[in-house]
Amino acid sequence: MIYVTRRERFSAAHRLFRDEWTDDKNLEIFDKCSYPNWHGHNYVMYVTVKGDLNPETGFVVNIKRLSKIIKEKIIVKLDHRNLNIDVDFLKGKMASTENLAIGIWEELEPTITALGIHLHCVKIEETENNFVEYFGN
Amino acid sequence: MIYVTRRERFSAAHRLFRDEWTDDKNLEIFDKCSYPNWHGHNYVMYVTVKGDLNPETGFVVNIKRLSKIIKEKIIVKLDHRNLNIDVDFLKGKMASTENLAIGIWEELEPTITALGIHLHCVKIEETENNFVEYFGN
Amino acid sequence: MIYVTRRERFSAAHRLFRDEWTDDKNLEIFDKCSYPNWHGHNYVMYVTVKGDLNPETGFVVNIKRLSKIIKEKIIVKLDHRNLNIDVDFLKGKMASTENLAIGIWEELEPTITALGIHLHCVKIEETENNFVEYFGN
Amino acid sequence: MIYVTRRERFSAAHRLFRDEWTDDKNLEIFDKCSYPNWHGHNYVMYVTVKGDLNPETGFVVNIKRLSKIIKEKIIVKLDHRNLNIDVDFLKGKMASTENLAIGIWEELEPTITALGIHLHCVKIEETENNFVEYFGN
Amino acid sequence: MIYVTRRERFSAAHRLFRDEWTDDKNLEIFDKCSYPNWHGHNYVMYVTVKGDLNPETGFVVNIKRLSKIIKEKIIVKLDHRNLNIDVDFLKGKMASTENLAIGIWEELEPTITALGIHLHCVKIEETENNFVEYFGN
Amino acid sequence: MIYVTRRERFSAAHRLFRDEWTDDKNLEIFDKCSYPNWHGHNYVMYVTVKGDLNPETGFVVNIKRLSKIIKEKIIVKLDHRNLNIDVDFLKGKMASTENLAIGIWEELEPTITALGIHLHCVKIEETENNFVEYFGN
Repeated sequence: MIYVTRRERFSAAHRLFRDEWTDDKNLEIFDKCSYPNWHGHNYVMYVTVKGDLNPETGFVVNIKRLSKIIKEKIIVKLDHRNLNIDVDFLKGKMASTENLAIGIWEELEPTITALGIHLHCVKIEETENNFVEYFGN
Repeated sequence: MIYVTRRERFSAAHRLFRDEWTDDKNLEIFDKCSYPNWHGHNYVMYVTVKGDLNPETGFVVNIKRLSKIIKEKIIVKLDHRNLNIDVDFLKGKMASTENLAIGIWEELEPTITALGIHLHCVKIEETENNFVEYFGN
Repeated sequence: MIYVTRRERFSAAHRLFRDEWTDDKNLEIFDKCSYPNWHGHNYVMYVTVKGDLNPETGFVVNIKRLSKIIKEKIIVKLDHRNLNIDVDFLKGKMASTENLAIGIWEELEPTITALGIHLHCVKIEETENNFVEYFGN
Repeated sequence: MIYVTRRERFSAAHRLFRDEWTDDKNLEIFDKCSYPNWHGHNYVMYVTVKGDLNPETGFVVNIKRLSKIIKEKIIVKLDHRNLNIDVDFLKGKMASTENLAIGIWEELEPTITALGIHLHCVKIEETENNFVEYFGN
Repeated sequence: MIYVTRRERFSAAHRLFRDEWTDDKNLEIFDKCSYPNWHGHNYVMYVTVKGDLNPETGFVVNIKRLSKIIKEKIIVKLDHRNLNIDVDFLKGKMASTENLAIGIWEELEPTITALGIHLHCVKIEETENNFVEYFGN
Repeated sequence: MIYVTRRERFSAAHRLFRDEWTDDKNLEIFDKCSYPNWHGHNYVMYVTVKGDLNPETGFVVNIKRLSKIIKEKIIVKLDHRNLNIDVDFLKGKMASTENLAIGIWEELEPTITALGIHLHCVKIEETENNFVEYFGN
């Protein structure tokens, strides 16, 4: 088993709030993240897969192919988008980094598995100080 | 003359577009940056001041004071805000990194000058690949 | 289970030596780290917690609350301090990065557990080339 | 159990291709990595060991000793070298990051074990976007 | 005048040596950089341009256009190439970082000038510890 | 004229305070930096020199020689030392980053000039948020 990680980036807007809560309660719980006119981040995403070595290529996976999958399945949906409005797999969910990591895992997992390897981890950095990792359930 | 730099960060949403242009023209010029529902960045700002050494403190400027000025004059207006909607000093201007750097310079310059030192440069990183520097005019 | 990490920083002085050893032996074992007048580092700390998603907030933990706990329990004791002299939870211990990671774990663990989540890892970077991780015992 | 990591760097040339494949097939599979006149990288290597604390030193391992072992066993063979031509432990293998991580593990493991501690992970970053981790088998 | 910088990356092989010198003299002057079978680097390039603000776009230059120019004029010639063998604008020159920066400046300058702006600086990082800047002559 | 920069690092302890001031005044002016038992930093230093290209080597300066000079003149005096106690060129001066940059400039300048090139800048990063640049007077 070897672990291979690809880093990709996307810039998106989002906001944390619950409609059924007052502005004051949203501010109390979500602080600045609840400000009404959106804010955004340069998200950094690390997708880690694991598998055995292909003896012909010396690869677990051709990382250009992995990058292409991530771009086609994820980046195109998230980059320069609004996570609350534009993203099908986040519909009805809080646009937290946790839900983002889970959503990306679920979008990627079938395609990664179809390559004969395993998705191991989706890691999302929201800022240089905050990040989330999801290893599936 | 010694140069002292303070790094601060803010996360904001923005969008690049001109109302009087068609969506197609906006997309042609501004590409993904014109997407309608906003996107955002973790902006990194470097404020450089220059001046002579205060022999008592060994400082050009007390960097905690410089940081406090930047936070009170700039960060509070930009962090978790929408650059197109929420920021007084960007009203009526394209929310480009260039205009952001110029606007921050103009906000900070009088207060820095009042300290008896000089504002030298405002540098804004929008992503790890793009940044802008303004040295005044 | 989702993993959430908060990064915090502190600057501290320390020195590695054993009183009962000669200066020569301390130098042989600890090299420059045994120099008599202290040296110091910009330590970078990563605190990783794990838990289930709170469906209301989309959070494992409110990261502002996690940051506040780390600041109140750890940073205030370590930042701009001398690890050999000033830190209660390092008294009588070698001020190594290993002991620092273990000590921080023990300081944080009860408070993190009381939040209904689990402390997963304390990682301390002493320099850009050396770091230590502790996952409890 | 505590985990200690040392970061080291080396700059090397390499090329990905199979002699028995046509240039076109090599280009199809390995893309730019198959270009004939070599290319190269600033590889970053993280060697993680784990073990119990030595109560006298507060160390799992003297990290200067660990660094010396990595330099003598690995860096001297790889730094400013051609991975396809110059490296004994890669002879007959594709010069992929995966094989590099496995080869370095096998070179280091006996010496690390002889110290009474365990090799936990060899991580190799080929670029800022691609990295590989090997934990043994 | 505002300064705008675009960061791009390329991975290349090279070697420093003079044919008319003995191997010993090459080793004495160029040390490991003279090793016969090439080595390589992940070069990081920063291209800084300066100019006035276009009031319609808020840009000095459309950074996507700048990036496209750099990719078409420079990256395609350098990425995954051998600096000593493959690069027309380095023919007959030592493949040093200094000559690389000068060569890139000369390749880019006419195209940048034709945009109505000015090339200000080409900065090349060879490793995290060594970099070169050229501002024209 | 080409500019070449070498990055070096050192870890040191220091404290900011004036003997003739009360503890309260020191705390008011220097805040945590005045704490009595020292603290410390991983300082990062960038030494930039400028000069013409040597046509035989393609170098402004052999960067290994520049690194050796910095290590012998500066690092050996500062690394794992106490800036207030151990450093001859800081004696009688406040151990601020500003004075550190000026002191390093004065230590390096004659040796750099003797190489037939010019010292251009000494930059010192005290933390990831604070840095100082000195260009001589």
